[in-house]
Amino acid sequence: MMNTIITIAREFSSGGRELGRRLAEELGFDYYDKEIIDQIVSRTELSEEYVKSVLESEPHHLMPITTGHSFAYVNGGMMKQEQSVYAAQSAIIKELAEKSSCVIIGRCADYILREYNPYKIFVYSDMASKIQRCRAKGDDAADMPDSKIKRYIRRIDKGRAKYYSFYTGNTWGDKFNYDMCINTTGTDIKKIAPVIAKMFEK
Amino acid sequence: MMNTIITIAREFSSGGRELGRRLAEELGFDYYDKEIIDQIVSRTELSEEYVKSVLESEPHHLMPITTGHSFAYVNGGMMKQEQSVYAAQSAIIKELAEKSSCVIIGRCADYILREYNPYKIFVYSDMASKIQRCRAKGDDAADMPDSKIKRYIRRIDKGRAKYYSFYTGNTWGDKFNYDMCINTTGTDIKKIAPVIAKMFEK
Repeated sequence: MMNTIITIAREFSSGGRELGRRLAEELGFDYYDKEIIDQIVSRTELSEEYVKSVLESEPHHLMPITTGHSFAYVNGGMMKQEQSVYAAQSAIIKELAEKSSCVIIGRCADYILREYNPYKIFVYSDMASKIQRCRAKGDDAADMPDSKIKRYIRRIDKGRAKYYSFYTGNTWGDKFNYDMCINTTGTDIKKIAPVIAKMFEK
Repeated sequence: MMNTIITIAREFSSGGRELGRRLAEELGFDYYDKEIIDQIVSRTELSEEYVKSVLESEPHHLMPITTGHSFAYVNGGMMKQEQSVYAAQSAIIKELAEKSSCVIIGRCADYILREYNPYKIFVYSDMASKIQRCRAKGDDAADMPDSKIKRYIRRIDKGRAKYYSFYTGNTWGDKFNYDMCINTTGTDIKKIAPVIAKMFEK
């Protein structure tokens, strides 16, 4: 029997993670997000902090390749370690997909699992909704003025886009990479999750 | 009671029209596509051929605005008539939306009905799927070689994009204009229509 795999890529603060969690609940599927980091940490013996910093795609980690050979040479060791984090992540994600039907958040899972024929969702919303969600969930940025939250959101998404294109060669958020793109602007994730879940009920 | 309005914008030969028709069947909604042209013809007393040529967005009809005032002046009358076709179309689409729950294909209905809070779907697929669909449905282009079908498809979509941006000021196919974008690459519309329909069942 083939497992049903749903991958969710999402703009920061678009509610994609919540949608994924609720979809998994509705469908009785496993749900993977930060759990993947714990597994990488235990396999690679790298610190959780380091693994997170690689996977949460601080842009400077990804610069050597684009700035040419001399820098890549200097930081060769660092680059290698980052790529081994990515390799560990790929192996773990494939194991999870083989184990059971599941929802996987981010982490290039749509690309990593391309041979498993996952259903690939991209979740997005307009900036006003994202700012609102960011405040509502009491994120670190919740107390900042709008203009600062906006920059914060843009910076995170820029990092995600860079990370994705670095490892997949594709454009993050380009609708052609996904089976479905869902705009959460002005929608209540609690309400849309059961509706989307219906699509996967057998 | 508010009617449920589903608007479907779609790339040529992506199966969007078929998806819309099947969605309407599944949901027992009215379905509007070419019916709108008949109504415009009967109201404006313009020929069906002319109305079609305006609405199927032959790019030259939309050129005056972009090529500056002198040309717009020469063709002032033609421009006015085209805009009156658009105005008649807008009025008809609004009446239909008020009459009953329905699915409306194309025609900037997502924009025209923005105050009716329609559910806006964009349907797309990769070029190989579009060529395959084009051949399967025995379209005029069905006997052309791939390279020619490709140009034909691109030309039609370019027309749609121009028409849409002319009347709405927005970018056709930009995911932010839609509530959901559905990639039909490699999918059987017959199978996905009932699944998508579930989202609208009350």
